[in-house]
Amino acid sequence: MQQILIDGRWMDSQLSDQFFGTINPTTKSVLPGEYPVSTIEDVDAAITSAIEAVEMMRSVKPEHIADFLYGFSDEIMVVSEALVEMAHSETGLPVDPRLRSVELPRTINQIQQAGDACRERSWSLATIDTQSNIRSRYASLGGPVVVFGPNNFPFAFNSAAGGDFVAAIAAGNPVIAKANTGHPGTTKIFAEAALRALEASKLPRQMVQMLYRLPQELGLYLVSHSHVGATGFTGSRSAGLRLKDAADRAGKPIYLEMSSINPVFVLPGAVKERADIIAQEYFDSCSLGAGQFCTKPGLVLMVDTQEARDLVLKMSELFRSGIPGTLLSEKGPGEIKETIDEYITNGANMIVGGHLDDAPYFCHANTLLSVSGTQFLEKPDIFQTEAFGTVGLLVFAEDAAQLAIIAASLEGNLTGTFYTHTNGQDDDIYEDIAPIVRTKVGRLLNNKMPTGVAVVPSMNHGGPFPATGHPGFTAIGLPASMRRFAALHCYDNLVNTRLPEELRDSNPTGEMWRFVDGRWSQDDI
Amino acid sequence: MQQILIDGRWMDSQLSDQFFGTINPTTKSVLPGEYPVSTIEDVDAAITSAIEAVEMMRSVKPEHIADFLYGFSDEIMVVSEALVEMAHSETGLPVDPRLRSVELPRTINQIQQAGDACRERSWSLATIDTQSNIRSRYASLGGPVVVFGPNNFPFAFNSAAGGDFVAAIAAGNPVIAKANTGHPGTTKIFAEAALRALEASKLPRQMVQMLYRLPQELGLYLVSHSHVGATGFTGSRSAGLRLKDAADRAGKPIYLEMSSINPVFVLPGAVKERADIIAQEYFDSCSLGAGQFCTKPGLVLMVDTQEARDLVLKMSELFRSGIPGTLLSEKGPGEIKETIDEYITNGANMIVGGHLDDAPYFCHANTLLSVSGTQFLEKPDIFQTEAFGTVGLLVFAEDAAQLAIIAASLEGNLTGTFYTHTNGQDDDIYEDIAPIVRTKVGRLLNNKMPTGVAVVPSMNHGGPFPATGHPGFTAIGLPASMRRFAALHCYDNLVNTRLPEELRDSNPTGEMWRFVDGRWSQDDI
Repeated sequence: MQQILIDGRWMDSQLSDQFFGTINPTTKSVLPGEYPVSTIEDVDAAITSAIEAVEMMRSVKPEHIADFLYGFSDEIMVVSEALVEMAHSETGLPVDPRLRSVELPRTINQIQQAGDACRERSWSLATIDTQSNIRSRYASLGGPVVVFGPNNFPFAFNSAAGGDFVAAIAAGNPVIAKANTGHPGTTKIFAEAALRALEASKLPRQMVQMLYRLPQELGLYLVSHSHVGATGFTGSRSAGLRLKDAADRAGKPIYLEMSSINPVFVLPGAVKERADIIAQEYFDSCSLGAGQFCTKPGLVLMVDTQEARDLVLKMSELFRSGIPGTLLSEKGPGEIKETIDEYITNGANMIVGGHLDDAPYFCHANTLLSVSGTQFLEKPDIFQTEAFGTVGLLVFAEDAAQLAIIAASLEGNLTGTFYTHTNGQDDDIYEDIAPIVRTKVGRLLNNKMPTGVAVVPSMNHGGPFPATGHPGFTAIGLPASMRRFAALHCYDNLVNTRLPEELRDSNPTGEMWRFVDGRWSQDDI
Repeated sequence: MQQILIDGRWMDSQLSDQFFGTINPTTKSVLPGEYPVSTIEDVDAAITSAIEAVEMMRSVKPEHIADFLYGFSDEIMVVSEALVEMAHSETGLPVDPRLRSVELPRTINQIQQAGDACRERSWSLATIDTQSNIRSRYASLGGPVVVFGPNNFPFAFNSAAGGDFVAAIAAGNPVIAKANTGHPGTTKIFAEAALRALEASKLPRQMVQMLYRLPQELGLYLVSHSHVGATGFTGSRSAGLRLKDAADRAGKPIYLEMSSINPVFVLPGAVKERADIIAQEYFDSCSLGAGQFCTKPGLVLMVDTQEARDLVLKMSELFRSGIPGTLLSEKGPGEIKETIDEYITNGANMIVGGHLDDAPYFCHANTLLSVSGTQFLEKPDIFQTEAFGTVGLLVFAEDAAQLAIIAASLEGNLTGTFYTHTNGQDDDIYEDIAPIVRTKVGRLLNNKMPTGVAVVPSMNHGGPFPATGHPGFTAIGLPASMRRFAALHCYDNLVNTRLPEELRDSNPTGEMWRFVDGRWSQDDI
């Protein structure tokens, strides 16, 4: 039985008599290793230890956090092959190019970016009014951050190494990581690397706790615990909404990334101009990671024209000939089928795929379906259900006016995309519909599929409910993602020596940006 | 019967057969005017009209919003005497210095600051990464903001003119104002001024709706409505928590300012150094506005020494000799008495006051009580109940160590204050306790009472739950307060002409600060 990480050491789960294992999605064979389902004793011990870390962190400087993050990235590089091998066996994601040459480098880059942001300190939006001597900045929460990682990014969103983890740590908060049960072994290797890096750093060993699995009620207990600072969750809508309800009632911030169908509007001019290219781009994006991206474009909206039908014909050839990717878990194929069946039951037309695939690995046939705009508008909830695989639902609107009505019926999404004619033919329709879509998505794209999510300061990997829990926060893009795990701390009439370094007259790094008397500045006061 | 403001005009409430009146707290006499309790027809009409305003606002530029705000402040100045007279009659707050020379100028200043922030545009934290051509900024929500104003600031927090109103409008959102039922006449004058300013502006007339009162279930309906963008609420904890629950379930942001007891730690050195001054400052702050400030210091924490007892003696003389202020409403005296009775039932010692006062105006005797640190720790919930009047609860801790334990038992508050010896005698205790208090309050003060809330960018009028609903947002201080009513909008791969002005290569105002490739800049790209 694997051990959990609590109080800076690996220990047996307390009083646990339940455990779980994992299955290799590529071979459908059981993987070695049993992982405990934690008890309330484990959870309480994790919280107690994390609170000790909160207290110890009061005397730790941002550059020490940065040093930990850099050290952590070094430790990850040392075990990179073990990580790739384990993640491949647990998730079925391809070793190359996906795990080794894309996701792991990105994960390491995120950790290092967080270190840089932490060292440089501008993330805290330090604001100083010299006349009134009132000063404020964002600072750590005073309680640990709970991170629930999703199944689809075993590295970049791992609860013990991914985006939420580094954002929370870089903002100065201890983390209680709840491993995704799809890749506990991968999470364990990260947590081991984190512990080694902690031991070599000036941070408390108790900075990171890691549990593998919690019964549902303990998840609710954890996110609503009075000593917890906040929670970051990426996963299913049903689990997310349960956790949100518990956290909301306790007044605890919770940042959720739930589901998104990422509508793509292919406007008539673009259809005429470059149907082949768009069909290929759509298939590539929709099938990336076997269609298991949060930003997978699941809904394509077009005006019903002969050219659009031709474009779909090209798309359907690609979907038909493409080899179905490996799904993350045993549950995947059935869940996809269930959603597709629901579409069909409600009148969708099957174009290609739609069946479970008899293969030695977990998969589902690449699937394209269509509905008319009128059908969509009759049951917008049904046709906005996410199918977590290579599944695309095409909506053929009668005309541009109906396309606008459909746009207005959309739920909150992470992304919304427009394909438009490159010389401006689609401008009128775009100008009608884009403002409607704009308020419903976190990121608006033009002539580019949404699956690529650059880790840059301007990124918004977020969006209105139910894509996330709040339209003002991003889970990707430093330093903004750190501010989710921070409180606004104002100081009124304090002498310089009692202020945090960030708010003293002297700029603590010489490079930190501060909003002083209404101007952003790197100067001392 | 007074009319409500919907769809840019004054109209009768639809199908309403309920109404309410107001009472002059200074004379206990009924004021002229009957105000309707709105129906679901009114609420739906308000939402429909506000959504039309959202659509019309798409073509409105920030400088037009600013012009409206400046025009609104002019209109308010025209009716300033009517406002002062009405607010005085409805709330009993003194005409001078309070209403005429403090709160109204501050309110006008807030409106103008919001106009400036809107015109200058830096509030939106525009972030541009040139290499990836990804750009983001905060922008309006795509749905109206509902504002519930409190009873205690008829101008500065008025739902049709105060901090939440201007923050929401300046961020580009229409407002549905729910008047506080304590000052409907004041709110009406503001709404009339707003409508006149709208008519003279390039904003839609439908930008502001105003209702006087809603049955409880319609308040819940409104804040959770699918077309509403967000809600700002200032008021009681019980009402706030009900609204929060409804909004949370619907995934709608809600910003709440509920209750706060604003602990003041008077450390032993300060007690020795300047007991008289502190006693006077405390009484002045506690009795300001008859003790009906959100930031009223309701809890004083000291180590139990002879000097501390002497300080309390001085305090009690001030409380005894001070004339009780006029309370905002008929319910005030009884509610204060109820809280005090609860303190007493649970063992608090009455020092002075504690009784209802037989006066021709609504009031309650200035009251001081005390408990030991041990008593406080036995029932921290009881002794952290807010008494909304000139009531102070003193906690005498056995020693500094117990003071720290008490600090750790505190709930989230808007403010926390330390009085310390000016030459450093209290440094050791301060360094032990201040970090504990820091994570529990939005604003930390030193040697200054918390009732003054400067409207400056660095202000945080916020704090952890249950003082508010989220520790990362402030209700006062522009431009930060605007970001509560905004969504993060990212643009990926858009040509310049399809970007909002704030994110184009050219700086739209020449003065706007933008975070370009990791540096804050006012330059064009």
